[in-house]
Amino acid sequence: MAADGALRFPIISVNDANTKHLFDNRYGTGQSTLDGIIRATNRLIAGRTIVVSGYGWCGRGVAMRADGHGGNVIICEVDPLRALEAVMDGYRVMPSVDAAALADIWVTVTGDINVIGPAAFDAMKDGAIVANSGHFNVEIDIPHLRERAVSVREVRPLVEEFALADGRTIYLLADGRLVNLSAAEGHPASVMDMSFANQALSAEYMVQQAACLEPGVHPVPADIDAEIARLKLASMGVTIDTLTAEQELYLSSWQSGTV
Amino acid sequence: MAADGALRFPIISVNDANTKHLFDNRYGTGQSTLDGIIRATNRLIAGRTIVVSGYGWCGRGVAMRADGHGGNVIICEVDPLRALEAVMDGYRVMPSVDAAALADIWVTVTGDINVIGPAAFDAMKDGAIVANSGHFNVEIDIPHLRERAVSVREVRPLVEEFALADGRTIYLLADGRLVNLSAAEGHPASVMDMSFANQALSAEYMVQQAACLEPGVHPVPADIDAEIARLKLASMGVTIDTLTAEQELYLSSWQSGTV
Amino acid sequence: MAADGALRFPIISVNDANTKHLFDNRYGTGQSTLDGIIRATNRLIAGRTIVVSGYGWCGRGVAMRADGHGGNVIICEVDPLRALEAVMDGYRVMPSVDAAALADIWVTVTGDINVIGPAAFDAMKDGAIVANSGHFNVEIDIPHLRERAVSVREVRPLVEEFALADGRTIYLLADGRLVNLSAAEGHPASVMDMSFANQALSAEYMVQQAACLEPGVHPVPADIDAEIARLKLASMGVTIDTLTAEQELYLSSWQSGTV
Amino acid sequence: MAADGALRFPIISVNDANTKHLFDNRYGTGQSTLDGIIRATNRLIAGRTIVVSGYGWCGRGVAMRADGHGGNVIICEVDPLRALEAVMDGYRVMPSVDAAALADIWVTVTGDINVIGPAAFDAMKDGAIVANSGHFNVEIDIPHLRERAVSVREVRPLVEEFALADGRTIYLLADGRLVNLSAAEGHPASVMDMSFANQALSAEYMVQQAACLEPGVHPVPADIDAEIARLKLASMGVTIDTLTAEQELYLSSWQSGTV
Repeated sequence: MAADGALRFPIISVNDANTKHLFDNRYGTGQSTLDGIIRATNRLIAGRTIVVSGYGWCGRGVAMRADGHGGNVIICEVDPLRALEAVMDGYRVMPSVDAAALADIWVTVTGDINVIGPAAFDAMKDGAIVANSGHFNVEIDIPHLRERAVSVREVRPLVEEFALADGRTIYLLADGRLVNLSAAEGHPASVMDMSFANQALSAEYMVQQAACLEPGVHPVPADIDAEIARLKLASMGVTIDTLTAEQELYLSSWQSGTV
Repeated sequence: MAADGALRFPIISVNDANTKHLFDNRYGTGQSTLDGIIRATNRLIAGRTIVVSGYGWCGRGVAMRADGHGGNVIICEVDPLRALEAVMDGYRVMPSVDAAALADIWVTVTGDINVIGPAAFDAMKDGAIVANSGHFNVEIDIPHLRERAVSVREVRPLVEEFALADGRTIYLLADGRLVNLSAAEGHPASVMDMSFANQALSAEYMVQQAACLEPGVHPVPADIDAEIARLKLASMGVTIDTLTAEQELYLSSWQSGTV
Repeated sequence: MAADGALRFPIISVNDANTKHLFDNRYGTGQSTLDGIIRATNRLIAGRTIVVSGYGWCGRGVAMRADGHGGNVIICEVDPLRALEAVMDGYRVMPSVDAAALADIWVTVTGDINVIGPAAFDAMKDGAIVANSGHFNVEIDIPHLRERAVSVREVRPLVEEFALADGRTIYLLADGRLVNLSAAEGHPASVMDMSFANQALSAEYMVQQAACLEPGVHPVPADIDAEIARLKLASMGVTIDTLTAEQELYLSSWQSGTV
Repeated sequence: MAADGALRFPIISVNDANTKHLFDNRYGTGQSTLDGIIRATNRLIAGRTIVVSGYGWCGRGVAMRADGHGGNVIICEVDPLRALEAVMDGYRVMPSVDAAALADIWVTVTGDINVIGPAAFDAMKDGAIVANSGHFNVEIDIPHLRERAVSVREVRPLVEEFALADGRTIYLLADGRLVNLSAAEGHPASVMDMSFANQALSAEYMVQQAACLEPGVHPVPADIDAEIARLKLASMGVTIDTLTAEQELYLSSWQSGTV
């Protein structure tokens, strides 16, 4: 909207705050997505192949927890940097159409459309489970899946079974809506607290700075971000080091070096 | 009972079969215990200190999954061998009374009585959560906890809050009964299948061998155990190597060696 | 030898002691094998496919550490139970000939002969590295590899490059001898201490019991095993719980149960 | 220097390129630091407490690999955001002076001065090992350590033993210089390739753009960064997905949403 000139007032991109996306998106989405899948299906994750589409902060969280449950994780990505990180993190990385043939459970967390489409459905194993934990219910091409199914039935709450003409069955969770919200309770309070703190303190900041903030997208001020981290650590009983004056000076200097 | 002469017929100790205790106890209990705790409390496990009492197969499973959720795991054990394995597996190991002061969540999986007792309750942090995933509801000394509480209330289904006279609150899950059965769905079918196969094939074996089986406790026959593993691998689409005749021979030989 | 009647005196199978094989074989072989491979090759393990043949205690150790370095681990096994454990531990499991096409680094730890043979060499990727950390230098069929090579040269100390007629090159570490001993320092003293304690205390025990020990293979007495674990914990400053009288009684009882 | 007006020509901050710091600093420093410590000491990492000062990319790499070796990791940080990430990643976080009493091995990777100073040396356990993998040999206050020692001797190559007056001994690796360079071979070629590609392609870019680049610090151009990731993936035989036109359009749109 900002790029199109359609944004007429200042907003703060809370989702880009470090205390938001590094925590809520990663640890919150990670735990709650696996939680949603397990509540919906009661499947054992250990020993199963879990495909995760998208290796942003949410995708990393989901991959980390699927791995932490004993799953064997495959990542699908379009960004070469993220794909390379996924490889170095020990995951297999491959195109969606190749992953489709291997997935026991497939989770989309890309923020994009039709990530699981006709070609992927063609290649999928009998009994595969597909779920979405990205933005909206558009990541899986559900209209296509409905169209090619010869019958559809709910086998457990939030688990729809699609019988395909070729004899395979595909299971869709929560109608492709966010599985962590639909089939579990969403993010735990103990990670949302930081996200809400960002919203509250950013709103306060906007009111205080109303006079001088231009229309457009502004970042969460760095000191609000750091303050939230400090408060969260304190609430968990964690204390940390403080730089000495000598250390502060050294960090800002470029004249010292190896001896 | 066998030791006391009280066992008057043959039984097969299905729980000791490898395809039972190595899988159901470890991967089943591990996943479902975390699942039960998360469903009951909706807490984020990442960043929390999780104490696990008992490092048998069930305890290993719970520790592995608590670690896989980003928890920081402490093990309490009475057996020095298991304690040493836990240390080498990267966990902190300490007496219960020391762990009590650190636990955010404490899970008992020992099969013994009063594992969390008065001394542990004395030392516990305000807000600590206690749960059991062992045999019965005797691992936590609940009568003691009830007695010392000044008030008790259910704050979420299956979550009881005990307010102590000194101002601390302790949360007990599922009345100390198996949290994976009470607050989740128990072990997934995809791991119980092996346990049930052991029961079914052992029952069949006992009928066939009724004439010659002495009263007492018998192990699951090794070939039934191996056959279940083979069937399970096949059901997951996994194929494995077979020894060549040359390899069979080498394994049974003691005359070859380094050259 | 015992089975063949060729064993004429009592011996104690130190390698079967829990404080030996659970620690030395697993944690010792695991760390030192990766150490040997890295010293020999200076390769980054993260992002590479590491095939481990054998999922006994040594194989588990190697797999655990390869995974801990960010490698993507594949297990080859002949035993269905161990294969199933490997699957449940999150690794891919497949026949050697399939793994050959994927291995960047392949380590044998089976105790058997010709684990990497002609069919595997046929399927191997260009540039693959093969190493052994099992008993002797017979796990890799080196005579076959030498025979099919059109040229052989040492590219780094302990790294031999075999150029094959089809243009591929294969690298063999340490002439197929134990890579952790040949290319690194073997097991650290801090794990061998337990193995040596088993040997010393078992030798003492045999001298003391010389009069009554039959020829044949005897296990390490359980109290020696437990005592070594106790001493090791103490040396690391770790203390553990002790069963109360009430807990001892409960464990030996079969009359209590769920209420 | 730029801030002080002392920088008179354009430079490109190659270390800030994603294909540099996300890989070389993290996976390269991680593996090679553990490699250096193990080569110098031959200690078993499993079961030991490893303290890492600094949770930047290098510190994360070292923590990840220490954990991957079975170590129990403690992080010391001055930045609340990084400290909170370390907590959520499952590590203990505490002030240096508290960590000192627990460290079996302590590694500094902060880029700052006197991170291990007098107060830490006061609190350290007998037999603790200190090493540096940060920028220069100033992270450990070695002059102080030399001064308080009653005797110093080299017990293995690159391992100096400092006997203190109170009877404790402290071991310093590689004179506090980068332990991964001093005691091992530094980063493997298979991660340095990306760092060198950044240097080479950035140098080429500066020559081509010489006419229009202002004096000051410039980032590596994003398309050079992405191209290096693409080349690296190709060299590892990894292929990835490509956005469809429909997906490109959706990503840049703000009008679609949940249905």
